[in-house]
Amino acid sequence: MSLARRLPTFYAEGDNGGRRPSNLPLGVLGLSLVFLVPGMGAAALVEWGSSTSHEEWSLGVSALIALFLGVVLVLGTRFPSNPRPSAVFPAVVWTWLGCSVIGALPYLLSGAFSWSNWDSALFESISGFTCTGSTVMGDIEAHGRGLLMWRQITQWYGGMGMVVLAVSVLPMLGVGGLELMNAEAPGPDSDRLAPRISGTAKRLWLLYVLFTLLIGLALFLVPGVGLYDAAAHALTTASTGGFSPYSDSIGHFDSLAVELVIAGGLIVCAMSFAMHYRAFTGDFGAYRRAFDQMLFLKIIAVVTAAATLLLWLKGGSAFGLSLRDGFFNTVTLASSGGFANIRPGGLGDFAQWLPSGQILLALLMLIGGGVGSTAGGMKVFRFNIVMGHTARALQLAIRRRAVLPVKLGGRIIPERIVGRVLAFVTLFIITCGAGTLIVSALGTDPVTAASGALSAMSNMGPALGEAGPASNFTVFSRPARMVLGGLMITGRLELTAVFLGVAMIVRRGIQPLRRRR
Amino acid sequence: MSLARRLPTFYAEGDNGGRRPSNLPLGVLGLSLVFLVPGMGAAALVEWGSSTSHEEWSLGVSALIALFLGVVLVLGTRFPSNPRPSAVFPAVVWTWLGCSVIGALPYLLSGAFSWSNWDSALFESISGFTCTGSTVMGDIEAHGRGLLMWRQITQWYGGMGMVVLAVSVLPMLGVGGLELMNAEAPGPDSDRLAPRISGTAKRLWLLYVLFTLLIGLALFLVPGVGLYDAAAHALTTASTGGFSPYSDSIGHFDSLAVELVIAGGLIVCAMSFAMHYRAFTGDFGAYRRAFDQMLFLKIIAVVTAAATLLLWLKGGSAFGLSLRDGFFNTVTLASSGGFANIRPGGLGDFAQWLPSGQILLALLMLIGGGVGSTAGGMKVFRFNIVMGHTARALQLAIRRRAVLPVKLGGRIIPERIVGRVLAFVTLFIITCGAGTLIVSALGTDPVTAASGALSAMSNMGPALGEAGPASNFTVFSRPARMVLGGLMITGRLELTAVFLGVAMIVRRGIQPLRRRR
Repeated sequence: MSLARRLPTFYAEGDNGGRRPSNLPLGVLGLSLVFLVPGMGAAALVEWGSSTSHEEWSLGVSALIALFLGVVLVLGTRFPSNPRPSAVFPAVVWTWLGCSVIGALPYLLSGAFSWSNWDSALFESISGFTCTGSTVMGDIEAHGRGLLMWRQITQWYGGMGMVVLAVSVLPMLGVGGLELMNAEAPGPDSDRLAPRISGTAKRLWLLYVLFTLLIGLALFLVPGVGLYDAAAHALTTASTGGFSPYSDSIGHFDSLAVELVIAGGLIVCAMSFAMHYRAFTGDFGAYRRAFDQMLFLKIIAVVTAAATLLLWLKGGSAFGLSLRDGFFNTVTLASSGGFANIRPGGLGDFAQWLPSGQILLALLMLIGGGVGSTAGGMKVFRFNIVMGHTARALQLAIRRRAVLPVKLGGRIIPERIVGRVLAFVTLFIITCGAGTLIVSALGTDPVTAASGALSAMSNMGPALGEAGPASNFTVFSRPARMVLGGLMITGRLELTAVFLGVAMIVRRGIQPLRRRR
Repeated sequence: MSLARRLPTFYAEGDNGGRRPSNLPLGVLGLSLVFLVPGMGAAALVEWGSSTSHEEWSLGVSALIALFLGVVLVLGTRFPSNPRPSAVFPAVVWTWLGCSVIGALPYLLSGAFSWSNWDSALFESISGFTCTGSTVMGDIEAHGRGLLMWRQITQWYGGMGMVVLAVSVLPMLGVGGLELMNAEAPGPDSDRLAPRISGTAKRLWLLYVLFTLLIGLALFLVPGVGLYDAAAHALTTASTGGFSPYSDSIGHFDSLAVELVIAGGLIVCAMSFAMHYRAFTGDFGAYRRAFDQMLFLKIIAVVTAAATLLLWLKGGSAFGLSLRDGFFNTVTLASSGGFANIRPGGLGDFAQWLPSGQILLALLMLIGGGVGSTAGGMKVFRFNIVMGHTARALQLAIRRRAVLPVKLGGRIIPERIVGRVLAFVTLFIITCGAGTLIVSALGTDPVTAASGALSAMSNMGPALGEAGPASNFTVFSRPARMVLGGLMITGRLELTAVFLGVAMIVRRGIQPLRRRR
């Protein structure tokens, strides 16, 4: 308690009548750290039961550290009753950063990465909590099954975080929660975090757990897939993360059944959980009404067809093989899963596809999945609104006096939202461009740098060029990896949260210094 | 006359009381073709006086064909007194296409390109009239001086076309003529082509001629530069075109003085001619007030500094050399000139620069020059408005109820204009992306395809990768070159004109067919 009181309280809200400082960012971070403990514990048990390695103490010690810090932060702070948006942004940024730092401890304590290689451990942890799936672990199979399970669990936690973000922070930005407009979550016009958010979050989490269990069960039913593999891939499929305990990812199984289960899981989990929940309560029209989510399915269908034709007609592969690899890689990149299905005789290494096929896949990375899901990218509804706005501008050049709304499906989008979406997409592209510039300045060829930045921003996993699915992110220099890690968090938190959060951290951090003068 | 009457009159305006059909597109095209005759004649004279080759008949015959077609079209049609915007767009597209086709005749008649290689001649002509400067002539010096002079003159004509576009068509789109808002040209809200346009165009053309003469004189004063070289490069500098009668472009002279004159000319001609005109009439404050044009100079200063530092510190070259090549290549790419200064011991081949330097240059291509100039790209003022809109969206995420305008300098930009600019930039990026996809599908590596599409859209000239300044556009397959030619015209005519023009050509072309049923 006394320690907690001495912690910086830059973000303390005004009403400090109680004994504990009211501090949203540290409170949320504390709660999140406590939340990590069961995951670390479970991974420690897996490690303990594993016959190959015994690094369970590293996971156990990490769990104790997370528990201690989390309890101190939770007991030492008080949640403000009505947090302002300006307090929520830093809270989200601190939470993802703090969890990534603590989540990197098992890698360091177990010796998977040496302490002098701390940034690689942090990269792996950030890649996990942002559900990205890029890795700098060279020989993945050399590590203990428990440590790898922790790696998978970080992605699952990240997906859980996204679900709660989708019902709390994103609607406050006025764009993220579009599809929840008529649902129980606070609409884009609400400025306050409503108490019912926790209720919504809990229901969506249950759905998330259910999907994870179903994917795991389906995988387990495939002959040759053990319990560990089923659990590992269920965790990273539901979160559209893409970590795998195998270097050759899904290619390890060389099984069409496994690919179909994972592709199916990715498609479901890259679509709005709120929509699934409404369908679950009997309102099956929710699927039909969610125009952007349907558009996501159409994009997958069109790109699968295009990729299949490219591989078959121009690549000269067999039709069945072209369809199988065209479909799986389209789904894994559209959903920002990022699994690879490279296997002998297959076409899974899309970094070797024809350039046009690669550019199609890069486009999928950019567009991303459905809003309110665990998928990354700029999201299908934003893509749709940008296209609608552009088509309208062309029409207006002739019909100067016309008043034309931008529509999503049959629904008119308020101009305020259209403006924000355009700004978001611009910021997304600018950030990708700046990331490409910096990464290439740190010594990477343009294709690898650009696709790496886009992959990080879209929380995809593999990139193109030298960082393709057959390779990993060790091709980037260590400083470049830190930049990519920053892009992962920026993309995961839908940009605005990060840019405003950092702006506020800088502003509030400077204010106390000024007062001292 | 009877021929002209039988020509399709899809675009005929309603009031057809007179004997001649009122047809803006064919009338403007005819006038433009007549306009080409003096240029072809001048080139024929140069060829006739040249001691190396005697292909003047090919230029003379082309001039006769242009004259005949032009006179028939002009006499056979009548300009509508009050053309609607919907008639102007097809007129602009037909004019550029028609001039490019007729402008390709000298290349074919002289045998510079064989008839079976007609698409290369057309590419060279399109590259000329759009002031792009990409070339598919392998050994440029093998061709006659007169034919090469025609090549340079096509760019100069293209620049002249841009000046008249800037005061006529672009203001009608509501974005292109922003800086002319308070000048004599019709403001963005005027729907009709005012008669005073021709007066404005004439004054700006005089300025354009003056700049060409001044650049030519300055070049001629440099020791070792002959009259032909001075004239040739003056024509392509004033139009920010970039054609040169030498394969190694400006590197041929290996002269700092030549580079400085050309860089100075490019900077001046990549800024608004209306602004220059106002300064010319004594209103020097016009420069200070044109915020976007000043931003263009700042961008050049910043990128020159960055490029110099990159070449000097990271590239390990001498400081003076780094500054010289950093400055020249920054200017040539910022102004969409596209000259190359590759010479022994120099650093002019920017396709060999560090990746970060190359990406900086690609950014310059995208941003482009000042509006109302002969430069290409999306233009600095649009870049500024997109940035302003994005910054505002971030501020609005905190201050939800605030009403913040987007400003250019101190001036508030109407929301209607902001919306159109955002749509323009989106369309620009989408078109670039689609071009990249198609060009790479036609068998080009991603870097060359993407930079080639961007270079074409921005009317730059050289690209990166295999199509860098040391190379030419023969690295693209013939179908890919046609796509790039289309992008050149699309970029030159500020996208909207092309998209709407083609839409109307398709619509009006279909309407008569429908009536027949």
